[in-house]
Amino acid sequence: MSTTTTENTAEAFGVTTVNKVKRVHERGRYDKKSVYEILDAALVCHIAYVIDGRPYCTPTSFWREGDHLYWHGSSASRMIRTQKEGTPVCLTVTHLDALVMARSGFHHSVNYRAVMAFGTAHFIEDPAEKLKLMDRFIDRIYPGRSKLIRQPNQQEFKATTMMGMEIEHASGKIRDKHVADEEEDYEGVRAWSALYPVTQVIGAPSDCARQIPGLERPDGMADFEPGARLDEVMTKTYRRTFGQ
Amino acid sequence: MSTTTTENTAEAFGVTTVNKVKRVHERGRYDKKSVYEILDAALVCHIAYVIDGRPYCTPTSFWREGDHLYWHGSSASRMIRTQKEGTPVCLTVTHLDALVMARSGFHHSVNYRAVMAFGTAHFIEDPAEKLKLMDRFIDRIYPGRSKLIRQPNQQEFKATTMMGMEIEHASGKIRDKHVADEEEDYEGVRAWSALYPVTQVIGAPSDCARQIPGLERPDGMADFEPGARLDEVMTKTYRRTFGQ
Repeated sequence: MSTTTTENTAEAFGVTTVNKVKRVHERGRYDKKSVYEILDAALVCHIAYVIDGRPYCTPTSFWREGDHLYWHGSSASRMIRTQKEGTPVCLTVTHLDALVMARSGFHHSVNYRAVMAFGTAHFIEDPAEKLKLMDRFIDRIYPGRSKLIRQPNQQEFKATTMMGMEIEHASGKIRDKHVADEEEDYEGVRAWSALYPVTQVIGAPSDCARQIPGLERPDGMADFEPGARLDEVMTKTYRRTFGQ
Repeated sequence: MSTTTTENTAEAFGVTTVNKVKRVHERGRYDKKSVYEILDAALVCHIAYVIDGRPYCTPTSFWREGDHLYWHGSSASRMIRTQKEGTPVCLTVTHLDALVMARSGFHHSVNYRAVMAFGTAHFIEDPAEKLKLMDRFIDRIYPGRSKLIRQPNQQEFKATTMMGMEIEHASGKIRDKHVADEEEDYEGVRAWSALYPVTQVIGAPSDCARQIPGLERPDGMADFEPGARLDEVMTKTYRRTFGQ
């Protein structure tokens, strides 16, 4: 399935007091291309929302279509019941890329790619749109898989709520450099200093114990090579499904 | 450095409307041992907080001492300026362990270990306590390293705020199983189904280009073996520094 959308990734998100990167501002990214790349490499995000003035932070899976982000939940969950009312949310994605050991505590750091996206959550009311989104949620991770599996029954359909939000503000933040110390510390401090790369990788698949004999790994799983980086796999499967 | 604290991990966090795991409640964990293990295996968390009724979700590093969680930030950052006022926060840790492909969309899942911890952020006012925490923040990740590096100068000390919160409520949530489908789907749906393990691993260290010749990797880095799982390294370094 390919749902190619023409995207003007040359555009940028407006910079406001909400999304302006205030600390180490040279790390900030507001262009859509950078923000999209970080989002589309991710399977999991963390969503912040407010109930009775108290913040909650829930991890969940999500994906992007244009400037819209989608996720799902159990219709009975606290997160979904709250978000259904049109609540403001902040959806954050973080990729940890390296640990950076410096010669002072102050310059210890990590390399990372992160996006904070702000908007108002809405739920998908139209059943036909909801069904399409449920399929695309599967296909975004496992290209073509929605055609291979059983479609949701009435109970499952009702028990699942699809949520969305248009990105009103967003900012990316990237650190991508080696040890950066105060000039005098390079020679003045005798501390072994280094960068350790960090990657999230997939392993070899473990078949379901009740696999129907003779079934083979579908073509859509070609990117899921054991040892592959999850962010790279997610970027590839995203493009297989949504084009560009 | 060892700051052994006697912890009664047989205790449990009280279950309230704030932290009760409502969906798939057999995945819930309230005993301190389970909650601590998930927290202590993590380097990065996501913290939700509220400014002007709007939620924010910021990724940052943190660690635990007893029922207290600590993190830091730039004194000028929005997150820190807000949290200084004693704001409620939700600190969430998520370890992604596997992708689980089922025979229906409904039973697709991921294996994970997550904790949501709720409390009120406070900042560390006492300079002596703050300095100790700054050292322990380094040592928690890199055992013994605070003794090897340059101590913070006045400007760095002022520019850094150490934050803490006592865990008022917390819950863990774990999914740790293989494909679990509807009984009739095992034979009725011809979809290859499997579990892909996901791990976050460290690579080989890359020395700082300006390393002082002859310096060797300190003993405290023994757990940082290339290929090691970051969650396992963090658990080991935590125990080296805090005992138990």
